[in-house]
Amino acid sequence: MREAYLARLGRRIAASGTVLCVGLDPDPAALPDGFPPDVHGISRFARLMVEACAPLAAAFKPNLAYFEAFGSPGLAALEALRATIPTNVPVVVDAKRGDIGTTAARQAAAIVAGLGADAVTVNPYLGLDAVAPFVERGAFCYVLSRTSNPSASEVQDLALASGEKVHERVAAIAAGWDRGGGTIGLVVGATAPAELAALRRLVPALPFLVPGVGTQGGSLEAALRDGPATSGLASTQPAGALLVNVSRGIARSALGTRDPGEALAEAAAGWAARLPVLDSAAAVPRGAS
Amino acid sequence: MREAYLARLGRRIAASGTVLCVGLDPDPAALPDGFPPDVHGISRFARLMVEACAPLAAAFKPNLAYFEAFGSPGLAALEALRATIPTNVPVVVDAKRGDIGTTAARQAAAIVAGLGADAVTVNPYLGLDAVAPFVERGAFCYVLSRTSNPSASEVQDLALASGEKVHERVAAIAAGWDRGGGTIGLVVGATAPAELAALRRLVPALPFLVPGVGTQGGSLEAALRDGPATSGLASTQPAGALLVNVSRGIARSALGTRDPGEALAEAAAGWAARLPVLDSAAAVPRGAS
Repeated sequence: MREAYLARLGRRIAASGTVLCVGLDPDPAALPDGFPPDVHGISRFARLMVEACAPLAAAFKPNLAYFEAFGSPGLAALEALRATIPTNVPVVVDAKRGDIGTTAARQAAAIVAGLGADAVTVNPYLGLDAVAPFVERGAFCYVLSRTSNPSASEVQDLALASGEKVHERVAAIAAGWDRGGGTIGLVVGATAPAELAALRRLVPALPFLVPGVGTQGGSLEAALRDGPATSGLASTQPAGALLVNVSRGIARSALGTRDPGEALAEAAAGWAARLPVLDSAAAVPRGAS
Repeated sequence: MREAYLARLGRRIAASGTVLCVGLDPDPAALPDGFPPDVHGISRFARLMVEACAPLAAAFKPNLAYFEAFGSPGLAALEALRATIPTNVPVVVDAKRGDIGTTAARQAAAIVAGLGADAVTVNPYLGLDAVAPFVERGAFCYVLSRTSNPSASEVQDLALASGEKVHERVAAIAAGWDRGGGTIGLVVGATAPAELAALRRLVPALPFLVPGVGTQGGSLEAALRDGPATSGLASTQPAGALLVNVSRGIARSALGTRDPGEALAEAAAGWAARLPVLDSAAAVPRGAS
């Protein structure tokens, strides 16, 4: 049995001094000079990102779609990339899967067993059936609650008869799946700071993975202020087990530079500094003072 | 520009005389004797299913997860399998993807360009951003509304302030994405016959893909009665452009037989006969008598 994800993540946040999660979404249309816009180019660039950012990252978040876009050779490139990530840096596989139980079990085989995911992102629309197989294989599940994209509100902000919004009810349902066990967190976009604050009040114990602070223009301040868990297991970890993801905000720094590796490391260092572990007191359980 | 999906599907439904969609979900734990429980076994079994069922199927629906479970060799097996499907039989890639726009564009590259999907299944939780890139590449999108699994109700049946349930509102939102263009349909499980009937009344013009009639125990009668579109473009197609999916109900017929190919063909023929094109009048636009 592996050490629990939250403990591993907490140790890494403390060691790196940041809540920066580096997203690996290599876009063939946005590679530096010398990297061809094909599977070799994105593979080489993603490896350079891992090399440059590993000392500065609390976690890596490879996004499956950017590799699958190149078919089986793209997936093979991700498998090879996974093996280059240092074992002390947790890997969140961003797949946003969600399916009936039998299919979810095969997805968990692919992502947890196959790609060695420590954590995954999952879509809540199919309910617990879609999530349970990942937890059973030992992966931590970040459930989509309020995402960072422009059309997120169409379904996620619908008003329920209970007075809640759909994404709030999803957060409460996800907390119920966890039962305090340290197996479930939420994806909440920094592009919706009011929703982020409301969700933190609603589910104080769930760890948040917050995308959207880079190119998408979300609020860094909101992520740092309302991102950390304030009760339960996650609140006993440094920074309340918060992760804030930056992908393009780092990757694009390499464009037009003479030394892409150096540019990536500088950009990651900049984001790490803007995403510090603010309150080390959060590592002390409430009431333990 | 390819011929529109609904026209191709309609021609195939008319030619095959059935609304049977054959699901390709090869499970390594349920293969006939002589097929090893690995990527070679599932690959060989899926090819046998395509060979045996192609003359009897209105469409094929390969499920990505069953191939991805074997990593990049699994995805390569699906790529090879895709090439064996006759060009007159539409292929619905069951991926249930849903992500922000930039990522959804890479998913569409993978699934439409890479795997040659004629149609895909997509998750509505992220809104139109998750769907548009597939439509832009010419794929038809079956949006999850009410799925067939036991925990489907957790989020999908939540009561909205408007009096609708979430899955009903999702159906209406999806119809709005289509604007009568023949680009959007719904996934509605046969395991929820009351919801299927209500959805058909709510969105009479959207084509339905109905899973859950085989091993999952859903109602065949409900699927045939309430599945066909009754207005709009889809209603002018044979069987109102309905597709009813059977996966394990066919695949498991090969277990314990001396000739798995023959058993698969017999099972597919049986399901095709139980899923006939009931009302050829549905091929005549309403009001055209």
